Amino acid sequence: MTLILALDFGGTKLAAATVNTGSQQWLGYERRLSPTNANADTDLEIMRSLINSLLKGAQPEAIGVSFGGPVDATTGKVRLSHHILGWENVPLRELLEEEFGVPASVDNDANVAALGEYRFGAGQGYDSLFYVTVSTGVGGGWILNGKPWRGAEGMAGEIGHMVVDPSGPVCLCGKRGCVERLASGPYMAQDVKEVLRNVSAACPEDIPPSLLLNERKDYQGHQHNRGEVLRKLVEDNLELITGRVVSEAAAAGDSLAKEILYRASWALGVGIGNVANLMNPQRFVLGGGVTKAGEDFWEVLRRVARETALPEVNFEIVPAALGDDAPLWGAVALAEDVLR
Amino acid sequence: MTLILALDFGGTKLAAATVNTGSQQWLGYERRLSPTNANADTDLEIMRSLINSLLKGAQPEAIGVSFGGPVDATTGKVRLSHHILGWENVPLRELLEEEFGVPASVDNDANVAALGEYRFGAGQGYDSLFYVTVSTGVGGGWILNGKPWRGAEGMAGEIGHMVVDPSGPVCLCGKRGCVERLASGPYMAQDVKEVLRNVSAACPEDIPPSLLLNERKDYQGHQHNRGEVLRKLVEDNLELITGRVVSEAAAAGDSLAKEILYRASWALGVGIGNVANLMNPQRFVLGGGVTKAGEDFWEVLRRVARETALPEVNFEIVPAALGDDAPLWGAVALAEDVLR
Repeated sequence: MTLILALDFGGTKLAAATVNTGSQQWLGYERRLSPTNANADTDLEIMRSLINSLLKGAQPEAIGVSFGGPVDATTGKVRLSHHILGWENVPLRELLEEEFGVPASVDNDANVAALGEYRFGAGQGYDSLFYVTVSTGVGGGWILNGKPWRGAEGMAGEIGHMVVDPSGPVCLCGKRGCVERLASGPYMAQDVKEVLRNVSAACPEDIPPSLLLNERKDYQGHQHNRGEVLRKLVEDNLELITGRVVSEAAAAGDSLAKEILYRASWALGVGIGNVANLMNPQRFVLGGGVTKAGEDFWEVLRRVARETALPEVNFEIVPAALGDDAPLWGAVALAEDVLR
Repeated sequence: MTLILALDFGGTKLAAATVNTGSQQWLGYERRLSPTNANADTDLEIMRSLINSLLKGAQPEAIGVSFGGPVDATTGKVRLSHHILGWENVPLRELLEEEFGVPASVDNDANVAALGEYRFGAGQGYDSLFYVTVSTGVGGGWILNGKPWRGAEGMAGEIGHMVVDPSGPVCLCGKRGCVERLASGPYMAQDVKEVLRNVSAACPEDIPPSLLLNERKDYQGHQHNRGEVLRKLVEDNLELITGRVVSEAAAAGDSLAKEILYRASWALGVGIGNVANLMNPQRFVLGGGVTKAGEDFWEVLRRVARETALPEVNFEIVPAALGDDAPLWGAVALAEDVLR
């Protein structure tokens, strides 16, 4: 029996867990939100306290780490975090190996979550799979021939910035109609707010053309409650609208929310269909908050992906099984691989 | 010194060559066009005669085969040809192994050409690369970790049917704005013909909206000779317009030809940029007739790919080095691998 320590530096939260190799149940599990104004030092300090309260002096045999940002997986050096200051070029693997005197392995969260779902979750038995997380961002991680494919410089998996609608709205990356621009929670919320701010109830048709799709007609039946449910859910305080609120409003029949969510599932469907044509993996595993948006979301996503892929290209699209723990379980797999 | 026999069943042409392992020069080389009304039997008969005239009784140590259509590379069974009848489920590897009494290996032409460029051409030393051929169709083949990646069922590489403009013209596959629909030679010719047939010289602006792109403005300066060069090149017989004619007319300054070619390079650029984000290969190697369209074509293609990929994602786009012989050289590599 070998003790594994798994760490997840998540951008907004930190988590640590211990497990014995071969077991699928945590021995211990600790989790804390990053404070506002967090930096690399405070993150490391909090993580140390989580680890101490988990290990209570015990010694793990190996450490696996998921990091929410670009990592050089061969050296275990963090390149940077887009969320937390001070992570530029931090040799995280080296730090941990020196501090604990055991081997460690570090990779970015999308790759690690893909590995977690492959080894312990919805990807078990599928040697070629693409894991996609749809949450505050849209990212992905590859398993090919049963191993992570990270790309020549560790940048593979960026389905979030695949362009699916060149006349779509502008993304932070500078392009138009990226998958992430159309399907991530914050962008869905932003688009809904923009419509609600600009459109008086008397003029429900006046929404920016960039928000429209040919296929939106499906959802234009209920103009009478366009945005009404959304407003009610946040008691008219539009600032409170999030991706989750959009999903809830769509489920309750709000036609504006349905339209935005439809566009998100359409964008993901086109992206996944394109990826199927390009790489022909057996399975797509989808996680992240936005994928909990309900049956309509999955139905559109699956239909559009099927229509986008060539008829001869087979694949399945399934929900992730490990939820928020996918990176931690992937970290376990990283640590196990270090010991092999 | 080991004699290798390389075969290329190309859809419109058949080629066979012999080489000694380690050499980069053909010992013998034979090539013939498929007759009209060709079928699998006539193809095989012609190939036999090419082989006989090459081998003159000598015995190769192994046979490598490139086939222009879907192949199950693990069994060497051809699934079908989209161009020639009678190729459904032909066990080509088995046929050749029985006939010549030596091991054979069969794969589809895009994968084989990728391997050829990797082992002998513009991909030498690049363990992760994507080969793209832009010709009568648009297809691709992967090298990852120095080996072909064929996908779970041998269907990987289909960049041709990646959707890059969901409001673009309809492709034979049923979708809109596929890379192949915008960038393949026959489709470029078709779109040019459609414009020339429908537009009188007095009304040069009246072209179908689906043919337009935001960026086409760059090329609208020369309305006075819109289509004129094209007409001249084929002496007003529009049926004679091909992808090559479009390239020639663009080089001579025809603004319609330039616009169509610009759109082709734009579509390829978006596709390649998307692939760079998704897989992060070191190098893209581009072959096929359309890629010979000149400097403007390459400049737009490279610029759009660079803009489409994230700034942190590095890659090069280079022309193929082996030209029409890429599949034959890849077949040599296949045969060499069989002997290892």
